Amino acid sequence: MIYFDNSATTYMYPEALDTYVKVNQSFFGNPSSLHKLGTLADNLLQQSRKQVADLLSVSPKEIFFTSGGTEGDNWVIKGTAMEKRMYGKHLITSSIEHPAVSRSMQQLEKLGFEVTYLPVNKEGLISVTDLKEAIREDTILVSLIAVNNEVGSIQPIKEVGELLKNHPTIHFHVDAVQAVTEFNQILLHPRIDFLVLSAHKFHGPKGVGIVYKKHGKRIAPLLSGGGQESGERSSTENIGGIAATAKALRMTIERKEAARQKELAIRDYIRSFLEQYPNVQLFSHEEGAAHILCFALQGVRGEVMVHAFEQEDIIISTTSACSSKKGEVPATLESMSVPSEWSKCAVRLSFGEENTMEEAKRFTEVFKQLHKKFNIIQK
Amino acid sequence: MIYFDNSATTYMYPEALDTYVKVNQSFFGNPSSLHKLGTLADNLLQQSRKQVADLLSVSPKEIFFTSGGTEGDNWVIKGTAMEKRMYGKHLITSSIEHPAVSRSMQQLEKLGFEVTYLPVNKEGLISVTDLKEAIREDTILVSLIAVNNEVGSIQPIKEVGELLKNHPTIHFHVDAVQAVTEFNQILLHPRIDFLVLSAHKFHGPKGVGIVYKKHGKRIAPLLSGGGQESGERSSTENIGGIAATAKALRMTIERKEAARQKELAIRDYIRSFLEQYPNVQLFSHEEGAAHILCFALQGVRGEVMVHAFEQEDIIISTTSACSSKKGEVPATLESMSVPSEWSKCAVRLSFGEENTMEEAKRFTEVFKQLHKKFNIIQK
Repeated sequence: MIYFDNSATTYMYPEALDTYVKVNQSFFGNPSSLHKLGTLADNLLQQSRKQVADLLSVSPKEIFFTSGGTEGDNWVIKGTAMEKRMYGKHLITSSIEHPAVSRSMQQLEKLGFEVTYLPVNKEGLISVTDLKEAIREDTILVSLIAVNNEVGSIQPIKEVGELLKNHPTIHFHVDAVQAVTEFNQILLHPRIDFLVLSAHKFHGPKGVGIVYKKHGKRIAPLLSGGGQESGERSSTENIGGIAATAKALRMTIERKEAARQKELAIRDYIRSFLEQYPNVQLFSHEEGAAHILCFALQGVRGEVMVHAFEQEDIIISTTSACSSKKGEVPATLESMSVPSEWSKCAVRLSFGEENTMEEAKRFTEVFKQLHKKFNIIQK
Repeated sequence: MIYFDNSATTYMYPEALDTYVKVNQSFFGNPSSLHKLGTLADNLLQQSRKQVADLLSVSPKEIFFTSGGTEGDNWVIKGTAMEKRMYGKHLITSSIEHPAVSRSMQQLEKLGFEVTYLPVNKEGLISVTDLKEAIREDTILVSLIAVNNEVGSIQPIKEVGELLKNHPTIHFHVDAVQAVTEFNQILLHPRIDFLVLSAHKFHGPKGVGIVYKKHGKRIAPLLSGGGQESGERSSTENIGGIAATAKALRMTIERKEAARQKELAIRDYIRSFLEQYPNVQLFSHEEGAAHILCFALQGVRGEVMVHAFEQEDIIISTTSACSSKKGEVPATLESMSVPSEWSKCAVRLSFGEENTMEEAKRFTEVFKQLHKKFNIIQK
């Protein structure tokens, strides 16, 4: 089987799964407990936190473990709103965010907050000038997705970071869930205040996320309670999942340059192949992420394409996993002004370190056959 | 080693851990994906949901998976507040709730909501008359802990359920995190609208919780995003953790009558033993939960006692795990009007199905020695 759906989720590294098992067998104490089982679990928790902090070149005090990317995004956005509501009620984001961001924003709108959704161009990029013009006296948050999950466009995070140096009170949040293998540094700019990751996107467990929160930046807790995670995120720590996450992140970061080169080669091979077809449209730009390639074959709906490839044991996806079952028009493509007769045909290939050029070749062969078949059907 | 700290956390059943491993090895797809890996994962998710629903005698549509008890309590409380804020801003709870409830309430107070904290008597019980008198036109929620986590007092949930039949618009939430083995039915009364469980308290994984939400009852999402869990709780489902949770709940419920009898015998054996000592005070009432016994030896601080038992390989705890490192006066005992010179000496034993009468005897022997030792020191 060829798995080209790594942006939906990745398989768990056997080493990370092994860590999960060992921790649950030998360190099952509650890290908050005073006794030795608690201390052992707490030591492991702090080691994991330090390992993640070192990998991101930040302080352990700035690393918080959550239940995933969705919780991270919700926490930063709603937590900023609740914490800073006396200072302002205006938030800025893009029109191509993951629903964890866009729907959090919509909830805040119902509570009286105002949100500016920056438009994107045909490459899926915001304009920093637009952002500059959108900033107001009462702006409390700028939230941007570093690498878009549907087409892989990479926002100008560094330029936004430079711009926001002039607005030190605005929280700058980056959803980096799809960005782990893309850059040398995930934390692209020191002006970033908050950064969110999800473990199952980098071969870690489902149900664990990481939030980087810059020292001194305050957001209200989303989960209040027993005071875990320095009182910022309560809930008994999922110590097995956290240790497995630290291990998976270390492995991913160690391998990421090699993985990226491989993904880039695969992407560009398939890209060049698809460009030959006049009835194929590519939605992912060359400058975008190495691991995402979004395209459409005219007249063949995304889900038909997904199932046709599945018959040949090639797993691809209709844009994002979240929206795939609801038959929604992909939000990112709509914002990129892609007409719906094209966007409803969109599919996404997303690569991982285990993919090979042989798999890319197999994909192109299957595509050739399917193209012929669909052409015959259409005629 | 003797582990008498099952209210803090339980060891994970090997069978549940095994389920976690197998699911992550063979069903790692994203349940939202259209392709077969997604379908396999989604089938497993729905099976797990049905299994949990059957165990609680409710509909699968009423079961939602979260990241734990804390998220469940936060979701129900904050979600009720956000959903019903136009109808009223008054909430009622007890003064001996878990911090996941009490701190959620405190956050709402900062946002302009009003909270009544019902007092408890010396047995840790609210009065239904007090509750009746506290209900107002603008009351939107009654939230009660079924079994208190520090002393094991059991609130009159059925009587409250009867009372609330006359107030059908008030959400009735029960934190049942410590209640899984206590009753024949966890869902003690049909008037309960929301019930929260935590998997790691019943030998399931850390980082997974269950929310029962009665059909038709509406609360705003705490985690908005990709629309998982019928749009009520977004985040890629932790399918390995969820399947392991369903397994652990089934095993726990199958064994719970036997476990409860065993815990009761252990508790009462230790209880009778401790009652001989005039300088020991018991805070857990005989009518309370079978698995929790809270007491104090006069003049010996809780943490000293915990470490003294630890030296003898007996793991006990200072009241709740959450508050143990902060050296806080136990909130429940304070509300029960226990003077601080006694409450700071409180320790909690909490039993599980793996504990034995031999362990109880060993505990009493060690206590005898320690009592002598501490008496000598004090003199």
